Amino acid sequence: MKKLLNRPDAYADEALAGLCAAHPDIYRQLGETGRVIARAGGMREGKVGIVSGGGSGHMPTFTGYVGEGLLDACSVGNVFAGPSVLDCMEAVKAANGGRGVLLLYGNYGGDKMNFNMAAEMLEMEGIPTKTVLVADDVGSAQRSEREKRRGVAGLIYPYKIAGAKAEQNDASLSDVAAIARKAVDATVSIGVALTPCTVPEAGKPTFSIDEGEMEIGMGIHGEPGIVRGPLKSADAVADDMLERLLADADIGAGERVSVLVNSLGATPLEELYILYARIEKRLKERDISIVMPRVGRYATSMEMAGASLSLCRLDSELEALLAAPAVCPFWSAV
Amino acid sequence: MKKLLNRPDAYADEALAGLCAAHPDIYRQLGETGRVIARAGGMREGKVGIVSGGGSGHMPTFTGYVGEGLLDACSVGNVFAGPSVLDCMEAVKAANGGRGVLLLYGNYGGDKMNFNMAAEMLEMEGIPTKTVLVADDVGSAQRSEREKRRGVAGLIYPYKIAGAKAEQNDASLSDVAAIARKAVDATVSIGVALTPCTVPEAGKPTFSIDEGEMEIGMGIHGEPGIVRGPLKSADAVADDMLERLLADADIGAGERVSVLVNSLGATPLEELYILYARIEKRLKERDISIVMPRVGRYATSMEMAGASLSLCRLDSELEALLAAPAVCPFWSAV
Repeated sequence: MKKLLNRPDAYADEALAGLCAAHPDIYRQLGETGRVIARAGGMREGKVGIVSGGGSGHMPTFTGYVGEGLLDACSVGNVFAGPSVLDCMEAVKAANGGRGVLLLYGNYGGDKMNFNMAAEMLEMEGIPTKTVLVADDVGSAQRSEREKRRGVAGLIYPYKIAGAKAEQNDASLSDVAAIARKAVDATVSIGVALTPCTVPEAGKPTFSIDEGEMEIGMGIHGEPGIVRGPLKSADAVADDMLERLLADADIGAGERVSVLVNSLGATPLEELYILYARIEKRLKERDISIVMPRVGRYATSMEMAGASLSLCRLDSELEALLAAPAVCPFWSAV
Repeated sequence: MKKLLNRPDAYADEALAGLCAAHPDIYRQLGETGRVIARAGGMREGKVGIVSGGGSGHMPTFTGYVGEGLLDACSVGNVFAGPSVLDCMEAVKAANGGRGVLLLYGNYGGDKMNFNMAAEMLEMEGIPTKTVLVADDVGSAQRSEREKRRGVAGLIYPYKIAGAKAEQNDASLSDVAAIARKAVDATVSIGVALTPCTVPEAGKPTFSIDEGEMEIGMGIHGEPGIVRGPLKSADAVADDMLERLLADADIGAGERVSVLVNSLGATPLEELYILYARIEKRLKERDISIVMPRVGRYATSMEMAGASLSLCRLDSELEALLAAPAVCPFWSAV
């Protein structure tokens, strides 16, 4: 894979600089390293803050979701590497409106370690935090060990839902954490990888996969999936992913779900819509209603080819928060 | 390149079906072939219509830009092949609100032939049309032969600007055609290709390019560009593209432009923002102001790697129309 970049070690920083330069009304860069992105307009006093973060290389995740009705700040690391403790602290401070800050991020060891350390130090400085981990990837652990699951594209649902809750003037940190937890519990995801991506500083693909093969359940950093086998038709892939999610989450007739068909990067919109058409048909057959479907690039691995499917089971509370206004370039109202 | 699809000959149709299934409030499929996409809410009487179209394989171009403040209908063909005359006629009829219809599409022989034939037949049926061709690709012909230039990603500017004009109750077909022409004249684009894409029915890449090479000026169907050479740094590529556009359009200090940094498909947001950061810096140095920049996937060639840069020189009239509301999943207000 060929990349348009300058120095590999400047990839993450230059991308962040461009994001902020292109959208100065939405994002601003903070911290000594510039690896903290916060809302351009600053933090509103009395609002519960929400911070996320993780490795670079997943745009628009994580930083793209900073914005009204979504996140308040993000700290990011190098490509596929967690943010530093100092940057996590800086992000939390930027998101501190005096009502506490929710740390809402994917379930990865390095991220957890650094966010936890930052939270401990900030507790001593008088900034209370709560942590909710996104763990939606059914390909990474059995349902009986849900706390071991990784966080993937389904993270947009807790972001959007907790983000909407935190805009409400009477919402406390406990309220926002509780709804984030509910959104995490409601969300399941699974991916299929067709090609690897290349971390700029490594200079070679993260894994290898034969021309005629695909891997179901692979993680967004190339973590091993559930099954590798011959590349199947889009319909067969859609059916396989959907069946796994419906079974795992036990979603049945009469329920309402939001559906996210996400490209891991190179896979174009055309293929996402081919997958979506099948998923919509299958859900209709089962009398499951789709609300606010999302089709596009929401959490990527740079130029990796492949897609993921996420379902978020909605009740009236989650649905209203999902539909609430949000302002960032990567969340469409329609 | 590996694709998630069913039958190669169903690729375009299934993608359209998915687009309409995912966004039933925005799009509806018309025509015997289903290759015509119109606004879900139908055509408003008394409004000038705008129709576009072309080959499939460029999502969200063309069909994605049907929506309030943008296009009224589109007709599309197979991947990289023009729409049929019948579908062009069907699209124009769907966009007919009794005030005439603007045909606004890229300058390609097959598209022109079929849209022209459709326009002639509809003239006899009493539906007046005017045609404005988008010809923004400076890599495809000299400025002295601008009418020979192909239409590429810069088409979003005439779409958005003419689309906003057509929503005004007092706008006539001539008014809308005139502003579309003005937007076309104000827009220049150039692309750089790093890898080819594969047309599903052909099953092999559209062209070949060595691992260490790039081609400046290549068209979105793999048409030959201006120069092929070693892959350069993002800054060098950004400078090269920007200099060509500024020289061609003679844009100088004190002017206002909108900037579009567009991925041809596989190239991720990170790389687009790296390019954007450099372009913003260079324009600032020249005292040229950026208004409403766009960074993302606006006109693609499926999974082709590469990017294009477009500039639209604004006066107060064009800027106001560019900033007017628009409702589709692929146009962000921020």
